[in-house]
Amino acid sequence: MANFDPNEHPHIRFNPLKDEWVTVSPHRMKRPWQGQVEKPQESEVPRFDPKNPLCPGVTRPNGKVTPEYDSTYVFTNDFPALLEEGPEPAPSDDPLFQAAAGFGTCKVICFHPHSDVTLPIMSKEEVRAVIDKWAEINVDLGKKYTWVQIFENKGSINGCSNPHPHCQVWASSFLPNEPMVKNRTQKQYYTKHGTPMLVDYVKKELQKQERIVLQNDHWVWLVPYWAVWPYETMLLPQRHVLRLEDLTNEERDALADITKQLLTKYDNMFEVSFPYSMGWHGAPTGPQLKDDNQHWQLHAMYYPPLLRSATVKKFMVGYEMLAQPQRDLTAEQAAEKLRNLQDIHYKLR
Amino acid sequence: MANFDPNEHPHIRFNPLKDEWVTVSPHRMKRPWQGQVEKPQESEVPRFDPKNPLCPGVTRPNGKVTPEYDSTYVFTNDFPALLEEGPEPAPSDDPLFQAAAGFGTCKVICFHPHSDVTLPIMSKEEVRAVIDKWAEINVDLGKKYTWVQIFENKGSINGCSNPHPHCQVWASSFLPNEPMVKNRTQKQYYTKHGTPMLVDYVKKELQKQERIVLQNDHWVWLVPYWAVWPYETMLLPQRHVLRLEDLTNEERDALADITKQLLTKYDNMFEVSFPYSMGWHGAPTGPQLKDDNQHWQLHAMYYPPLLRSATVKKFMVGYEMLAQPQRDLTAEQAAEKLRNLQDIHYKLR
Ligand SMILES: O=P(O)(O)O[C@H]1O[C@H](CO)[C@@H](O)[C@H](O)[C@H]1O
Ligand SMILES: O=P(O)(O)O[C@H]1O[C@H](CO)[C@@H](O)[C@H](O)[C@H]1O
Repeated sequence: MANFDPNEHPHIRFNPLKDEWVTVSPHRMKRPWQGQVEKPQESEVPRFDPKNPLCPGVTRPNGKVTPEYDSTYVFTNDFPALLEEGPEPAPSDDPLFQAAAGFGTCKVICFHPHSDVTLPIMSKEEVRAVIDKWAEINVDLGKKYTWVQIFENKGSINGCSNPHPHCQVWASSFLPNEPMVKNRTQKQYYTKHGTPMLVDYVKKELQKQERIVLQNDHWVWLVPYWAVWPYETMLLPQRHVLRLEDLTNEERDALADITKQLLTKYDNMFEVSFPYSMGWHGAPTGPQLKDDNQHWQLHAMYYPPLLRSATVKKFMVGYEMLAQPQRDLTAEQAAEKLRNLQDIHYKLR
Repeated sequence: MANFDPNEHPHIRFNPLKDEWVTVSPHRMKRPWQGQVEKPQESEVPRFDPKNPLCPGVTRPNGKVTPEYDSTYVFTNDFPALLEEGPEPAPSDDPLFQAAAGFGTCKVICFHPHSDVTLPIMSKEEVRAVIDKWAEINVDLGKKYTWVQIFENKGSINGCSNPHPHCQVWASSFLPNEPMVKNRTQKQYYTKHGTPMLVDYVKKELQKQERIVLQNDHWVWLVPYWAVWPYETMLLPQRHVLRLEDLTNEERDALADITKQLLTKYDNMFEVSFPYSMGWHGAPTGPQLKDDNQHWQLHAMYYPPLLRSATVKKFMVGYEMLAQPQRDLTAEQAAEKLRNLQDIHYKLR
């Protein structure tokens, strides 16, 4: 029988951070596509739209006016999923019917006053302003809340309801599922090995190089060994860093650089503004600021849904929802494809 | 302060089966929708399409001919994600780079020779033939494989590439993530309480009645307390049953009845053939057939993506991917809405 080749032979891979497996089916790359084709994205976004609540000077549906901002702008979501206070469910002693209080706040961060720019097109200084805002809000909301989830939904194919460059921040009194699991796995690893899991992981990936897409003096951008989405990537500092606010001035500048570079590659993939959901995970905050969180390492995840073209996406349905995520393209093939893409944005060529 | 009302006040709920939480934001029901609108589904599917590989008598792209079947028809997927054999990855002692063999087989079950029928429109006898086929394939593939995942992706909005009524069966040598977690949680509950979790759960829901959509002598169809998707439902036998093949003749007939009834309600919701991913979970098979699996209870899950209309779906993106699922409509509101829908299919009125 032939030797095992990860780019040829089906196998499963383990994600030590989420304590989960992914099914990898590289032999299936040649399958014809007969499924749903998405609408191409709106090609031209106007710089200013008097009906867009995120544009400077526009009156939002609730009567509040978005000010004439000229860099980033933060405000509380007009329809927040979490509220700062309210009645709490009574405690229940039935293990099958458990509810708990879930307080929090939901913010929107506009990245730039213009609707027609995106992070890879913005100047390095403008991206740096976004990074500083992320760090600042993590400190502000982290005073009170256990978890501050900074995330960006980009592209209408990805459920984003507004093309203006922005992200959201949902801070909560509870530790949500994903960071709860990562807290457990990173703690177990740290207890066993005495070093943070993701610091070790980055060191090993830097030696292997096969899944690295980009690196600079302070950061590494890679396709994780256990990636689920076709072009899923992970961005990590080379140093052990717990939270966004702990990044030095040089690390923030280097983060602005590598962010522009990677998002340029993403956009160049199908010559379209690449849709994704991204977010930051770092050590918990609020009451957990005083705990030992040395097992944590700051990292960002990018989950882009596109598979074959600007209009064909990967559906995480059926088998994925009921059993386990499945991918065709391997992590190594995705990394190579991303590495080989041009470094100059297709719109700037 | 007002008393806590689950249909008014945000809270979080626990899913004891998946050991996870869901964020419930009922106050957000009035949020305006500005996001992506999906293409309406193809309204007319031809009964026979000479290019559709699932239709009787059609030659598939790989040269095989689908026979002139007149009830259900099972064949091996022409592009299976899992293969029956092949080289295996070498064992690794690095906890961060773990791969394992993943063998299996992928089948397609056509429900009916006609492309223009769906389960709620089919006769009771035709639905019963599908149920018998599910039980039969669980026995057949369960002889060898640890997990036999029967699932249906329905609707192009849900990634289904073929409108012909069919489901898929992916059987694997490994226990995938979802059943692995459910195996653990059900075992823990059984060890602690001496009764199967889901048998207890159904008894309690039958007493409460507030999340029951349909019930008959043998089955209960409900919106689980911890539902994530807007109209997510769960279908369970009233008796303790480990696997599909253990269902009696009467239970299978009653399952055909309730399946037609619920799917009729689903279709009547937006007067469209309601998209969903569904699947069956029962006790593991293969080498685990000889283990004690009394903690397991057979159940089916339905995960429909639609939220507000036939063209507006719930996106599980950003916060959901990075932190925790979030819903606006409560499980109780969804159950009431489903209960109140007509029992006669809109196409048959
Ligand atoms: O096999 P199909 O219907 O072509 O493909 C669909 O179902 C599979 C199993 O749920 C998924 O992995 C695919 O992403 C989805 O498009
Ligand atoms: O807040 P938005 O952008 O309107 O809504 C989007 O992001 C939210 C947070 O990820 C999701 O819960 C919604 O399903 C999605 O449509």
